[in-house]
Amino acid sequence: MESLRLELGSRSYPIHLGAGIIGDAALYAPYLGGGSVAVVTNEVVAPLYLAKLRQALPQARITDIVVPDGEQAKGWQTLERVFEALLKARLGRDGLIIALGGGVVGDLAGFAAAVFQRGVSYVQVPTTLLAQVDSSVGGKTAINHALGKNMIGAFHQPRAVIADVAALDTLPERELRAGLAEVIKHGFALDAALVEWLEANIEKLLQREKQALVHAVRRSCELKARIVAEDERETGARALLNFGHTFGHAIETGTGYGEWLHGEAVAAGMVMAAELSQLMGHLNKTEVTRLRALLGRAGLPVTGPALAPERLLELMAVDKKAAKGRTRFVVLEAVGRAALRSDVDERLVRQAVVAAAQ
Amino acid sequence: MESLRLELGSRSYPIHLGAGIIGDAALYAPYLGGGSVAVVTNEVVAPLYLAKLRQALPQARITDIVVPDGEQAKGWQTLERVFEALLKARLGRDGLIIALGGGVVGDLAGFAAAVFQRGVSYVQVPTTLLAQVDSSVGGKTAINHALGKNMIGAFHQPRAVIADVAALDTLPERELRAGLAEVIKHGFALDAALVEWLEANIEKLLQREKQALVHAVRRSCELKARIVAEDERETGARALLNFGHTFGHAIETGTGYGEWLHGEAVAAGMVMAAELSQLMGHLNKTEVTRLRALLGRAGLPVTGPALAPERLLELMAVDKKAAKGRTRFVVLEAVGRAALRSDVDERLVRQAVVAAAQ
Repeated sequence: MESLRLELGSRSYPIHLGAGIIGDAALYAPYLGGGSVAVVTNEVVAPLYLAKLRQALPQARITDIVVPDGEQAKGWQTLERVFEALLKARLGRDGLIIALGGGVVGDLAGFAAAVFQRGVSYVQVPTTLLAQVDSSVGGKTAINHALGKNMIGAFHQPRAVIADVAALDTLPERELRAGLAEVIKHGFALDAALVEWLEANIEKLLQREKQALVHAVRRSCELKARIVAEDERETGARALLNFGHTFGHAIETGTGYGEWLHGEAVAAGMVMAAELSQLMGHLNKTEVTRLRALLGRAGLPVTGPALAPERLLELMAVDKKAAKGRTRFVVLEAVGRAALRSDVDERLVRQAVVAAAQ
Repeated sequence: MESLRLELGSRSYPIHLGAGIIGDAALYAPYLGGGSVAVVTNEVVAPLYLAKLRQALPQARITDIVVPDGEQAKGWQTLERVFEALLKARLGRDGLIIALGGGVVGDLAGFAAAVFQRGVSYVQVPTTLLAQVDSSVGGKTAINHALGKNMIGAFHQPRAVIADVAALDTLPERELRAGLAEVIKHGFALDAALVEWLEANIEKLLQREKQALVHAVRRSCELKARIVAEDERETGARALLNFGHTFGHAIETGTGYGEWLHGEAVAAGMVMAAELSQLMGHLNKTEVTRLRALLGRAGLPVTGPALAPERLLELMAVDKKAAKGRTRFVVLEAVGRAALRSDVDERLVRQAVVAAAQ
């Protein structure tokens, strides 16, 4: 097992990663306090890992809260069920919520922890690659609104992240690939060496080789932890992690949550953002091709859905990263060097969407 | 106009108070940024003060969000309407929410600001005495859940509080009295001199004399600001401000939100808490009588609703101030000196409820 640390003063926390660590009682012990525990998980993950997790909590009074699988569950209706279960279980302010599952469970349970009784502790136990390399780290929690993804949320840091790559053995192929989109994002936005490593090892990741997975998760968490430590509430550098996400969120909203996986939308969104970077003169064609090639090898979409470019542009205007009425874009100045731009000509954005469709 | 300051490092903010300051543009100017503004208010307050407030924001793009009056509005359904209006108005992360109204509007709009796009700025413009002396200060925001009051919420400090005592001219008599309950609470929990001042001036407050109102609001805000500065997230001293509230919340939940005003429930709750303090040997009978007498002169209830003591006790067990399965109580050790106790014998709590009914 390896451990990193996300440095945030009094809100610092460890990120533990390894194979077969879900059931390691010592990792949970520091956060049990003496209060009760609620495990939020979903219908797919519960039969696979809930018993293992519960074994690690022999002394605790545990309530299971099993929500439906999928992005549709990331809304108020499911959250309300979580609140009801927490209240019925009389979880106090000293209680602990454990999020066992992928990004949806982590975002939902994390937001529940952020606002239940004005905030209780929680631990992230991510069981998908996407959650392990991205969403479980950094304290961003949210639910979706019919008018926009992640529109209702909070910054609420977990007390710990426990990422077990052995849990990825049961992950559907499509979700594994969607998780790789975020690893590729970390490389292209922040770390050219990671891009090179991915170009050499993408097949090992697709074959779920433990050592390769540990490397990808660790490097992603290191990069993300560094950025979050610098800019917890996304007033600056953290926005770079949204490379591909302004377009990606529009794709998800435009197609209805759940049709495209988040990582798939981000993959197509990164191609659009890279095309935009090229149109703005920052990136050359070879670099855009490198991104398309790596995404292609990972089995990820490199073109967007059958949506009119105008519709995508319209959806982006309500994206929450809009500042002073203008949408901000994360562009690439080079492979591994993202930058934030708000002075982007809307015509170029439209051209980028069209170019990405070809 | 007078101004205090709540000291919370980078989250410090001013509390402005005076008569006729709602329309003072200079008080809002520092927070307008350049983004748009949403004013959340209710059907009763809007016709009285919305135009005056809008005059103070001549340059801003303003969206009005008018919610129903009353405690029933402090729930998810209304909050969802607020989110929808904010999204349709395309309020960005640099936008400002202004809460114009009483405690319900302040709690609701403050919570909306806490979680909309993971947090936007807001300013409190309290128009009831309860909101001016208590709920608008300190950053506690929440909505109610069917299973408990204020169960879903966040600590989210406003950028400023603008308390105009002239707005109290239109306040219904019953709500004025309910607000006095919180002033009386501040005195009995924290400041014996305030209790003496209230005993000498309660009629002036009931007659809405401006000078007396300014004194009561200022002293309450000073006391509250000092406590919040010391303990923003209620891990210690701030809980003292809940004197009467553990019982009070149970009364509100047991009778259905809205039948008893919050201040009325707190008044009866304070009597129960004082009786409990006497039963525990902290307070003598004269001091309990002083509390009853002052509440009586303010026209506030000194006995609880027609609810079985067992029902009240049951409701208190899910109160969010429950720690490690035990309900914590704020007791009085003397007039002006509250203390937190978690080792309270449930039989004494039951006896206190019975004693308060007599």
